[in-house]
Amino acid sequence: MSDKAAAGLSPRGSIAEIEHGAAFMPKFDADGLIPAIVTDHTSGEVVMFAFMNRQALAATLQTGLAHFWSRSRNKLWRKGEESGNTLKIVEMRTDCDQDVVWLRVDIQGDGVACHTGAASCFYRSIPLHQSGDGGTILEPVEIRRSKPA
Amino acid sequence: MSDKAAAGLSPRGSIAEIEHGAAFMPKFDADGLIPAIVTDHTSGEVVMFAFMNRQALAATLQTGLAHFWSRSRNKLWRKGEESGNTLKIVEMRTDCDQDVVWLRVDIQGDGVACHTGAASCFYRSIPLHQSGDGGTILEPVEIRRSKPA
Repeated sequence: MSDKAAAGLSPRGSIAEIEHGAAFMPKFDADGLIPAIVTDHTSGEVVMFAFMNRQALAATLQTGLAHFWSRSRNKLWRKGEESGNTLKIVEMRTDCDQDVVWLRVDIQGDGVACHTGAASCFYRSIPLHQSGDGGTILEPVEIRRSKPA
Repeated sequence: MSDKAAAGLSPRGSIAEIEHGAAFMPKFDADGLIPAIVTDHTSGEVVMFAFMNRQALAATLQTGLAHFWSRSRNKLWRKGEESGNTLKIVEMRTDCDQDVVWLRVDIQGDGVACHTGAASCFYRSIPLHQSGDGGTILEPVEIRRSKPA
């Protein structure tokens, strides 16, 4: 699949078309990437965040399974291809500027989204108002799991 | 505030320290930015997405109000400074790699997060499996509001 042609994606239009139109015309950044927010459709929690290139976005639309672009490995990556924790999309949305996508997913396999083995990548909170020289001390949070551990 | 020193932020450490440590050592990209996901703490919906630079992140931690870096206006921006729709942080988290932040917020003012006047920026869904040459046709979604319209 060439970078220019990817089924299901339209070229960018005017601001009015982007904000209020019905054509999906996603914006990719200077590196050819668009951010993707992933939430668990049962718990509602944000479970991971990654980037898609044009090919990953097109593959996601075609298969209903989340694909990303790995910047560290420089390759297309179907989430769960090794772990079995595939992300089956329940609903996908874009924002006003069409430069972000949000995936509401059903996590297959063990219901684990994070490469560390945690159910969600967001397992630490950042306390506010700790502006001392010692830095901010993160606090562990309990993740609401959609599936039993 | 210099770019190097920002209260509450520690320099990057080893992978073990980043993934399992308690020090907040956020990663900024080549442009000095970190992505920020914003969800409404009552509805649980993703309502907006923006970027912070080091200064915006430090100001957010110090005030408990969401600050971002506007790439289009090239300036620090406190969300709601014009609209009144300030984002008061209920909880803030970071991910395994500490290269994203997630803000659970209480939207002040009219409870509107999007510059278009929509309660959320994510007011259109992206249907799957529409891989024809005609592109993908977005569908409007009803946003669950945390406050009456």
